[in-house]
Amino acid sequence: MHVADPFLIQLLLIFAAAKLCGELFEQLRLPAVLGELLAGVALGPHAIGWIDPTPSVEAMAGLGAIFLLFTVGLETHPDDLLKVGKQSLGVASAGVAVPFVLGYAYFRLHGNSNHESIFVATAMVATSVGITARVLGDMGVLQSRAARIILAAAVFDDVLAMLLLAVVSGVAESGTVDWTSMGVLLLESTLFAVFMLFVAPRLLRRVKDNLQRSRSHNAQLVIALLLCLGLSAAAERIGMAAIIGAFFAGLAMAPFAREWMLDSRVGAISDFLAPFFFFLLGVKLDLKLFTGDTLMVAFVVFLLAVISKVIGCGLPVWKEGRRTALQVGVGMMPRGEVGLIVALIGLKMGTISGSAYAVVMFMSAATTLLAPLALRLLFRGEETQVSKTV
Amino acid sequence: MHVADPFLIQLLLIFAAAKLCGELFEQLRLPAVLGELLAGVALGPHAIGWIDPTPSVEAMAGLGAIFLLFTVGLETHPDDLLKVGKQSLGVASAGVAVPFVLGYAYFRLHGNSNHESIFVATAMVATSVGITARVLGDMGVLQSRAARIILAAAVFDDVLAMLLLAVVSGVAESGTVDWTSMGVLLLESTLFAVFMLFVAPRLLRRVKDNLQRSRSHNAQLVIALLLCLGLSAAAERIGMAAIIGAFFAGLAMAPFAREWMLDSRVGAISDFLAPFFFFLLGVKLDLKLFTGDTLMVAFVVFLLAVISKVIGCGLPVWKEGRRTALQVGVGMMPRGEVGLIVALIGLKMGTISGSAYAVVMFMSAATTLLAPLALRLLFRGEETQVSKTV
Repeated sequence: MHVADPFLIQLLLIFAAAKLCGELFEQLRLPAVLGELLAGVALGPHAIGWIDPTPSVEAMAGLGAIFLLFTVGLETHPDDLLKVGKQSLGVASAGVAVPFVLGYAYFRLHGNSNHESIFVATAMVATSVGITARVLGDMGVLQSRAARIILAAAVFDDVLAMLLLAVVSGVAESGTVDWTSMGVLLLESTLFAVFMLFVAPRLLRRVKDNLQRSRSHNAQLVIALLLCLGLSAAAERIGMAAIIGAFFAGLAMAPFAREWMLDSRVGAISDFLAPFFFFLLGVKLDLKLFTGDTLMVAFVVFLLAVISKVIGCGLPVWKEGRRTALQVGVGMMPRGEVGLIVALIGLKMGTISGSAYAVVMFMSAATTLLAPLALRLLFRGEETQVSKTV
Repeated sequence: MHVADPFLIQLLLIFAAAKLCGELFEQLRLPAVLGELLAGVALGPHAIGWIDPTPSVEAMAGLGAIFLLFTVGLETHPDDLLKVGKQSLGVASAGVAVPFVLGYAYFRLHGNSNHESIFVATAMVATSVGITARVLGDMGVLQSRAARIILAAAVFDDVLAMLLLAVVSGVAESGTVDWTSMGVLLLESTLFAVFMLFVAPRLLRRVKDNLQRSRSHNAQLVIALLLCLGLSAAAERIGMAAIIGAFFAGLAMAPFAREWMLDSRVGAISDFLAPFFFFLLGVKLDLKLFTGDTLMVAFVVFLLAVISKVIGCGLPVWKEGRRTALQVGVGMMPRGEVGLIVALIGLKMGTISGSAYAVVMFMSAATTLLAPLALRLLFRGEETQVSKTV
């Protein structure tokens, strides 16, 4: 009597396929998240074609990324992040500058236009920290110094990448730089970060006792979910990635995550939703686009994307030891959906060609696929069993 | 740098509004779920118009109903349901027959066509058990005899209502009854129910020990989620409501829900998603449609819908005492989204008019709004504090 609903069937197929491949990869001592990604590559419309995700499933995937970063935030204490603030700022700055310069130089040398080169270079800048956070969480090394530097650097990186895109798309559209709106953006995001790191945890601690007296059904979980949705929407509103807002929300509640049983309860929501995010990252990769020159360019851009982040993000923390430097460089490597969004904007503005878009897609997907493998190797021996038993 | 996303903003607004109104109602000693519904009535496009839910939000709401019934199933033991099987079958049968006869008679007397009368009568038949389950869960009385009769009767009710709709829409379309497809439907749903009640729990208990040895990350929650999505999709596939499949999935896992920490973890997913379901039930009510004759007819149909379920479902369990009979009758009263779906099918087939559709909408919404209030009164004194402290 009910109309057949592709939404429910897709959820079932995606969740089953992602978890099956994830389990298979784990049996082979490979990161589960890589299995979830490859399930998407294989079953998506570009390959076997069993699953062509509806917009509703895409929305669920976006929510999955939000809850993933919320969970990561809940496991991180704000004070820990502040301790690595200076290093992280260095990591983020060099990690933005090096990929941009290398990418721009290569595209210009290859004979592309100035505007197209700038756009592709910008797409090579922004780190997508979701996959790194998941791998580090699965290995139980989120408390390591390298992990904390990566997570803090991802916040700065997002602010810088966002400013860069504002400049680039402003230039592409009008030919001049709009310094006023850039200043507003910078001010807004700085105020947001400062408020979340210094003011929000104190405020929350003060109202916490009142909340515990509340008669409302499950009030603590409701407060946590409201903060997560609210800060995600707020971050998006001022032009940052929603997941950065979710990460801040987690940070703010981290001091009483365990007492309120938020770690297991929010973790359950994240365990349910995050596989859709990783599956859909895989779905976006179309292997058929790559032939001849495009394939060669894609491969070079991919190599540059890897090298530039490893050098740009690794060098500023070289003093901490080669191992930490490599861990940070590789952890900042995946571009995930952020690069794709930049390229999509360029494509819609008519600034970059279809083949340049395919190149960015390949670079995003390949760095995202490579990172979990490399991180596994680099963090070997530091694993704890915490996350497996929760 | 990210495109503003109405999905995230809508999630935030709906969750905040629903929870705020729910809290307000609880402070007034009224059911929280009623507040969530009325938030939808007030903020939806038919009234203030702040929120016009996107299809993605609708999909989330559907998922909310599924996880709500999954949670209810997890708190119910299959053996408890079987104990009340005979009473429940009586409750469901009379609860289908009486509303159909009364509804049909009134519409014919009012001068409507035979086909239209049959469709409206069918829309008056199917109980939507979601809201009753939520109210009883909030009060901590899911273990009471009346609650178990209601939940078991809802399963039979859904099967019967579904068969009735198959007949009615078959007759409306072809003028004859297709006995073969009806037989298949009846067989499928009976086999499904028998398998889930008798076979699945034993199968699961056998594989359970293997699952506990699995090295996979959070394998137990993954298994539970797969079963929930799988059975929901399967139920929908054979023509039953998806939520009945989710309820069976919960039943099958109920024996080890606590050991696997499923109650708190699946409960968290349900706490997050279910408010969207109730808010969207409210959104569907357009108060402006009711003027003059339509308003009168709507009110009479609403009264008939209440009386017929209270009598039809109450009488078969009259021996159990007046209080239990009333609890069961009122618990089976809400028509929720099921009646709306029937009416929508009739509207699309051209069998019922726009004003008859509005009448069914009013009947569905009003029974759904009235039930929580009445249930609160009828179960007063039986509350436990279980659900409040979880």
